[in-house]
Amino acid sequence: MAFDTLIQKIKGTNNVTVAGLDPKLDYIPAFIKNAAYEQYGKTLMGAAEALFRFNKGLIDALSGIVPAVKPQCAYYEMYGWPGVKAFYDTVAYAKSKGMYVIADGKRNDIGSTMECYARAFLGETAVEDETFTAFGADALTVNGYLGTDGIAPLLSICKQSDKGIFVLVKTSNPSSGELQDQHIADETVFEKMGTLCEQWGAQAMGASGYSAVGAVVGATYPEQLKLLRQKLPHTFFLVPGYGAQGGAAKDVAGAFDQNGMGAVVNSSRAIMCAYQKGGYDEKDYAQAARDEAIRMRDEINAYRG
Amino acid sequence: MAFDTLIQKIKGTNNVTVAGLDPKLDYIPAFIKNAAYEQYGKTLMGAAEALFRFNKGLIDALSGIVPAVKPQCAYYEMYGWPGVKAFYDTVAYAKSKGMYVIADGKRNDIGSTMECYARAFLGETAVEDETFTAFGADALTVNGYLGTDGIAPLLSICKQSDKGIFVLVKTSNPSSGELQDQHIADETVFEKMGTLCEQWGAQAMGASGYSAVGAVVGATYPEQLKLLRQKLPHTFFLVPGYGAQGGAAKDVAGAFDQNGMGAVVNSSRAIMCAYQKGGYDEKDYAQAARDEAIRMRDEINAYRG
Repeated sequence: MAFDTLIQKIKGTNNVTVAGLDPKLDYIPAFIKNAAYEQYGKTLMGAAEALFRFNKGLIDALSGIVPAVKPQCAYYEMYGWPGVKAFYDTVAYAKSKGMYVIADGKRNDIGSTMECYARAFLGETAVEDETFTAFGADALTVNGYLGTDGIAPLLSICKQSDKGIFVLVKTSNPSSGELQDQHIADETVFEKMGTLCEQWGAQAMGASGYSAVGAVVGATYPEQLKLLRQKLPHTFFLVPGYGAQGGAAKDVAGAFDQNGMGAVVNSSRAIMCAYQKGGYDEKDYAQAARDEAIRMRDEINAYRG
Repeated sequence: MAFDTLIQKIKGTNNVTVAGLDPKLDYIPAFIKNAAYEQYGKTLMGAAEALFRFNKGLIDALSGIVPAVKPQCAYYEMYGWPGVKAFYDTVAYAKSKGMYVIADGKRNDIGSTMECYARAFLGETAVEDETFTAFGADALTVNGYLGTDGIAPLLSICKQSDKGIFVLVKTSNPSSGELQDQHIADETVFEKMGTLCEQWGAQAMGASGYSAVGAVVGATYPEQLKLLRQKLPHTFFLVPGYGAQGGAAKDVAGAFDQNGMGAVVNSSRAIMCAYQKGGYDEKDYAQAARDEAIRMRDEINAYRG
């Protein structure tokens, strides 16, 4: 239930890192792109094939080292439906390698529409008497601006099966404060959103003490991260902003509970593009990613007690 | 620029209705589903084919009557990548019939990730030296919780080409007030979001006096709709919640400016499922939709002076 499976995988790898799979063509070694273009041309299908081949190599190299991957929908949707097929293939391949998959779609809507997103990313889709898996991720990032009507349809799927959501609370970007830091009575908008996460989560608690309703809290705001860890004892955190966006290992220290659990930390570019930093042939991009993931694991583990 | 094209199409049809294309299998006549299943089986591809055939009939019947359609991404994503292909085909077909297309994806992210969504839905995607259209809509609904970092990447595409966005301001659902009605100093969260829309839009003004940054404001909150129309003179409104969700024609009256412009009103189920209300054979579902769209046009026109 809830994030119990994720927590198991964290324990199994002794690693709280999530590898973000946000592949841009610029990140992908030429030998992969050329092979994909040979097969499908310099088209959306060719690009999508390159994305999937790149991801496959990363997943092979990272499985056993990182517990989870987080493909970001935008990088796939940019390549139209062939890109979305590459997203599906990526999720399925990561799952087949035993990884936990967080679909980073930041979806939001209400009622029966939100139920469709819940089915798409976390549940199953019926076509008459048959059921199919549309994308089949383990968790989905969502935006809570619409309130309970946007979250309730996810909770029913989270309760039926072993799934979770991460609600945007305090995002890692410079302008996140424009709305999120504003004060509502004696708390900020992001604290209010965090409180809602605790309320929503109370209906879907896991054995770990964390509910199925997690929160996105940026590594770039370490004070707020520490504050929220204290205020939201049942809310598991997904922490973006480490590495390329400026968050350091010491900045994420406040995300963890007294057992060093309660959060996963995402790194996308630093892992995907590790080979571009020098010292690696592009053919060894996956080995480079693995080396960076190990370095990051050890760096963060030093801060989670 | 901005919503000038949409406004032209509103004038051309004398209609402010947007037909929501949120097709569920339950809404689709059996003769369409059976033909699709014969071709592709009772599979995600079969369902996706049924969705597209259903939409095609609606678009044929509605073009010339309604200025715009609004396919809602969730209903397509539920059928995986074949569903997303049906979304693409629907957008392209509606455009080929001269309709304005609002992709209802409520997307949100930051920086280069948001730029990918902007390219996916409103812009173009490069694969080496070639450019492709991923989805090719005219406007996209977005969620502004992340602030300017989530909107700026869209603005640059809106300025380059004739595109627009609708930011969630006051949504139509019962629980929208949980966050949106909270007070930040002397205004509500939704008023603050509205003010941000005016600020963002100032960079991308159209000839009509409306900017490329519109707002989603629900028909179910007529007082707030009237208030926002006054506070946000350059912000074009997309008004959901009419019909099935309980908003009546008199409730949307406050959305319009003194020229009867400044807003479009969405109806999904009442148009799509008009044939289910009786008096129609299922073969005539498209005619039923057209009749309902005409009825709705006349009903709303009576309130927009």
